[in-house]
Amino acid sequence: MGKNEGEENGFDPENHNQEEEEDKKKHLKEEELSVERIFENQEVPSWRKQLTVRAFVVSFVLSILFSFIVMKFNLTTGIIPSLNVSAGLLGFFFVNTWTKLLQKSGLLRQPFTRQENTVIQTCVVASSGISFSGGYGNYLFAMSERIAKQSTDTLDIKKLSLGWMIGFLFAVSFLGLFSVVPLRKIMIIDFKLTYPSGTATAHLINSFQTPQGAKLAKKQVRELGKFFTISFLWGFFQWFYTAGENCGFANFPSLGLKAYDSKFYFDFSTTYVGVGMICPHIINISLLVGGILSWGLMWPLIGDRKGDWYAADLSSDSFSGLQGYKVFIAIALILGDGLYNFLKVLSQTIVGLSHQLRYKDASSGLPVADHFSLVSSRLSYDDKRRTQLFLKDQIPTLFAVGGYVAIAAIAMAILPHIFHQLKWYHILVIYIFAPTLAFCNAYGCGLTDWSLGSTYGKLSIFIIGAWAGASHGGVLAGLAACGVMMNIVSTASDLMQDFKTGYLTLASPRSMFVSQIIGTAMGCVISPCVFWLFYKAFDDLGQPGSQYPTPYAVVYRNMALLGVKGFSSLPKNCLLLCYVFFGGAIMINLIRDLVGKKWARFIPVPMAMAIPFYLGSYFAIDMCVGSLILFVWGKINKAKADALAPAVASGLICGDGIWTLPASIFALAGVKPPICMKFLSRGNNAKVDKFLGS
Amino acid sequence: MGKNEGEENGFDPENHNQEEEEDKKKHLKEEELSVERIFENQEVPSWRKQLTVRAFVVSFVLSILFSFIVMKFNLTTGIIPSLNVSAGLLGFFFVNTWTKLLQKSGLLRQPFTRQENTVIQTCVVASSGISFSGGYGNYLFAMSERIAKQSTDTLDIKKLSLGWMIGFLFAVSFLGLFSVVPLRKIMIIDFKLTYPSGTATAHLINSFQTPQGAKLAKKQVRELGKFFTISFLWGFFQWFYTAGENCGFANFPSLGLKAYDSKFYFDFSTTYVGVGMICPHIINISLLVGGILSWGLMWPLIGDRKGDWYAADLSSDSFSGLQGYKVFIAIALILGDGLYNFLKVLSQTIVGLSHQLRYKDASSGLPVADHFSLVSSRLSYDDKRRTQLFLKDQIPTLFAVGGYVAIAAIAMAILPHIFHQLKWYHILVIYIFAPTLAFCNAYGCGLTDWSLGSTYGKLSIFIIGAWAGASHGGVLAGLAACGVMMNIVSTASDLMQDFKTGYLTLASPRSMFVSQIIGTAMGCVISPCVFWLFYKAFDDLGQPGSQYPTPYAVVYRNMALLGVKGFSSLPKNCLLLCYVFFGGAIMINLIRDLVGKKWARFIPVPMAMAIPFYLGSYFAIDMCVGSLILFVWGKINKAKADALAPAVASGLICGDGIWTLPASIFALAGVKPPICMKFLSRGNNAKVDKFLGS
Repeated sequence: MGKNEGEENGFDPENHNQEEEEDKKKHLKEEELSVERIFENQEVPSWRKQLTVRAFVVSFVLSILFSFIVMKFNLTTGIIPSLNVSAGLLGFFFVNTWTKLLQKSGLLRQPFTRQENTVIQTCVVASSGISFSGGYGNYLFAMSERIAKQSTDTLDIKKLSLGWMIGFLFAVSFLGLFSVVPLRKIMIIDFKLTYPSGTATAHLINSFQTPQGAKLAKKQVRELGKFFTISFLWGFFQWFYTAGENCGFANFPSLGLKAYDSKFYFDFSTTYVGVGMICPHIINISLLVGGILSWGLMWPLIGDRKGDWYAADLSSDSFSGLQGYKVFIAIALILGDGLYNFLKVLSQTIVGLSHQLRYKDASSGLPVADHFSLVSSRLSYDDKRRTQLFLKDQIPTLFAVGGYVAIAAIAMAILPHIFHQLKWYHILVIYIFAPTLAFCNAYGCGLTDWSLGSTYGKLSIFIIGAWAGASHGGVLAGLAACGVMMNIVSTASDLMQDFKTGYLTLASPRSMFVSQIIGTAMGCVISPCVFWLFYKAFDDLGQPGSQYPTPYAVVYRNMALLGVKGFSSLPKNCLLLCYVFFGGAIMINLIRDLVGKKWARFIPVPMAMAIPFYLGSYFAIDMCVGSLILFVWGKINKAKADALAPAVASGLICGDGIWTLPASIFALAGVKPPICMKFLSRGNNAKVDKFLGS
Repeated sequence: MGKNEGEENGFDPENHNQEEEEDKKKHLKEEELSVERIFENQEVPSWRKQLTVRAFVVSFVLSILFSFIVMKFNLTTGIIPSLNVSAGLLGFFFVNTWTKLLQKSGLLRQPFTRQENTVIQTCVVASSGISFSGGYGNYLFAMSERIAKQSTDTLDIKKLSLGWMIGFLFAVSFLGLFSVVPLRKIMIIDFKLTYPSGTATAHLINSFQTPQGAKLAKKQVRELGKFFTISFLWGFFQWFYTAGENCGFANFPSLGLKAYDSKFYFDFSTTYVGVGMICPHIINISLLVGGILSWGLMWPLIGDRKGDWYAADLSSDSFSGLQGYKVFIAIALILGDGLYNFLKVLSQTIVGLSHQLRYKDASSGLPVADHFSLVSSRLSYDDKRRTQLFLKDQIPTLFAVGGYVAIAAIAMAILPHIFHQLKWYHILVIYIFAPTLAFCNAYGCGLTDWSLGSTYGKLSIFIIGAWAGASHGGVLAGLAACGVMMNIVSTASDLMQDFKTGYLTLASPRSMFVSQIIGTAMGCVISPCVFWLFYKAFDDLGQPGSQYPTPYAVVYRNMALLGVKGFSSLPKNCLLLCYVFFGGAIMINLIRDLVGKKWARFIPVPMAMAIPFYLGSYFAIDMCVGSLILFVWGKINKAKADALAPAVASGLICGDGIWTLPASIFALAGVKPPICMKFLSRGNNAKVDKFLGS
């Protein structure tokens, strides 16, 4: 048993491979490096006091701002950058200005704390997250007539209207919250998952709120500030060269054009270099191994079977072609890993529970807590203090489970009235499996910072669409099911990031939960309204070639059309490969658990391997660069690297993150970058030179 | 008088603005930083022993190699990178391997010293320099029928033949050597000019030959090695993206496309960043000021007068248009500065000479030496030792002057037989003014690392061409005069770089002089033969669009055609502006000398300002980046920056320098870079995307 724990913690292998003597030294060092020692004299307000009116006013304003930004991305490229960091920073900026003004006028009743800062950030993320998971750029808009016209059919459409959209969101958006609550402790305290964005945001908030006089903290804040500036300016500089598609540093074929075509390139993203510095080495290596296995080996090999395994005349994003293999094999791998870990936690919980019941020393709310608290003596001061506060304000599991069941029941009652094609038993099945998938997504996101909410959504399109069948409006049922699923799993990963931030800033889980509920409610109203504004203002919304082409909407509709034909529409051998990879994921996990932590840290993690299957390896290369930097830095000066690397990484992530804000504003205001940095093969270049010359 | 000295040394202001107390500390520090202390126990061989047979064998082999490389550049782009560093490195590599082999076989009679290394480098530079100043890519080839056909006339041509080319080179190439000799001490010991390439080469040679055990030296060698590697790899990386014209990092519009069009951009050249780190801050600033004054202000203003000041239908490189202003104003500025300094040195020499004669304590060969030796007590150990050895083996001024006169007489006798259009009095006039111009060029090169040999050549085309007149074959006379002039001034700057290297490696000026003579003789035979090989092998040599378009040949011919029309062919007000800038240069120098060194270091140097007038500011920006790096580094850690900056700068320069070698071999072998990194405006990019899409 004790072995298993060690291995789970083993994701951060450096903490566990130390000799006894080194441990002592490290302890002393950790005391010096402690963040919470600096904050020791600052009282942590009670969870009720963390929830202030001003926090929610600021959150509301920021929610509207971010909803516009996210909507814009939804409707143009469909790719949404993480806005956690911007939310944290802007929240600080607003409230800090406010409190400083009040302080000067003598009206300040309550100082601005980092917990309050976290509450704002959580609320904004919860709210603006719905702008994505609401599916305005994909499943929801795919139901409309505008998109259906671009596809092959115009049956199975649903006229968009503000009313049912808000109702739908209220019915499905809160469920994710309740599924997250019981996972909270497992992910953050037991598994010690990194959640790079959440960690970076927490570092940012901590550094803003650091009291004067702490020497190391000053150093860290300086490093954070330095790399924040570099990263921001680098983002700004890059922007100038991105006029047009495939332009700029993000498309730099640093390993050659051929490698670029297979998505092997360093895309100069400081975000992912920073993420790589926070993630354990093995995760970064796993990503790269996954990328090489898929894009370097499997896809080319499957591509050679074109015309045999799948029809040669399919478009590149058809799920009956290569794209089908990519998405479904990745899902199989993720599900295999997720299921294994889910079952492992479940069995440990049951064992722990029975152990507790037998000895009757139940002291904490969650049964697993006690079981894992055996290792607490080895924790650092920071970890101890954070764990203590994170566990202080409990949310009873019964409340979470009860809430989940109640909301699921309400959704089952309401949703079939909105979508006649979606039956109550479809929803029931989704809600039975959803917690497992939410677990998978939150777990994967904690490891790699990638949320794959839309991937799970696609899975639902297929399963529910096929189940409902083409004749019973399976297209609409599939799309609606996609929405139901996506809301749960996206919320699970987004909010788990927030909980990580809260853990590191000593914010109470209770206050965060309340903030998330309020944020979600805001989002359910704000985001449809913002979409409605765009929808009514731009008549060509969704038309290819227009300002807002919403490229994914038609892709989702086509997926749904394919889905109703059932698994038979998948390309040859795809299902077989899925089984193999599903089994492989379980096998690898089993081996990781059996060989002991000494060897486990050299075995790739299937969950991480799966992500580049679909996306390509470019971000894996960024992250490996981050890993390499950390490794070399550690070799040169271990103490300095340990003390400053999180600050540097957070600076890199946050600077780039904040840059998305002005970049988005530029995009909204129609300010376009002036130059395109283009990469052409020698042959093409000669052609272009001739063309431009003439 | 004492004031004047200080100001001349004031080009390196940091050395002279220290308080008394700091001086002592510095002295101690300098002892630690001394390079020559490390070599103290190594005997410096006599100048005869520095000249070994193996050195000249290696030099001969390398000369052929470099002649091919330079010829290739001549005939393709016309722009030649500095090969000093490669020569030093390859020389070391060859002889070191040789001596190691001999050592193992027990046959080694003489160890390989850094002086011998310098001798090889000097010989190779002297030899391969003729491949450029021989004018195969410009004035010489411009005389041929092939080029004349592309221009408006086919009169005034000279059939190329190997015989007269070798004769011509022998007649004109040695003169530069003798003009350099008397300038040697003034430039290097009195003016303490930097000669960045020469300094970098010396650092490289010193670091290779450093005896074991020196701690600081080890650090320096490590830094040099590190930045050498970075710079080399960066050059290699850049190469991949240079398929086609205007591709790659060297054309990165880092300040925007509009600034790029006015040649304001950072071109990512590690060479010039390194050069900027070696050059004093004021030189870098002067370059930038000159660039802003010319390309930012004057050229746009003159450009607005298009159609009024000069005809609107001229090609962009016509000397009757904007190009005329650029070249002639730059020349006026350089001449003004050069003349001022030349006269200043002359007057000081005369004063010093009369002083010497009066007190009869003439101890050193050159009269100025004694005068400047007043400051020697303030010199560091390194400077003292280097100066001592540099002055030990004298070359009598009388020998230099006598040699100059004798060779000039021979040239006057021979050249009119080769070019009937060039009269003996033309040559006489050139040779009377040549030393002044050679002084200007060597001086400017010492400040900024740029040799402007071709600019002085252009001046000769105009003056001699106009003098001979169109009816008396002025075109050919002008081109031949260009060759005569270019050989002297280019040799002057090239060999002064070598003398700087020799100064820093304790090589004897005498051995270097002999090496230069042998190298020049080699070059006079090798380079015409290499050209002949290309000329016979490629029938389309010189045709636009062919593999070897020799773009400058036709430009030079057009200049000559314009020149025979005299100054009247210059655009409106050009001559007036030249007078203004000539006077301005003298005025600024006068002010620099009058205000005292405290303020002089804030006044730009006209010589440096002139260089971007013609070339644009891109390298000035590189150099300012170097200056900025050094400045910031100095602020963070002054001692470290002082100790390591030359090594870092040398590494940057040398790495990029050596990269030219494989790059040239790739080019010769026909290995072409695969990708073009292109920069397009948004509008053009949209067009290109459409073009490539269709």
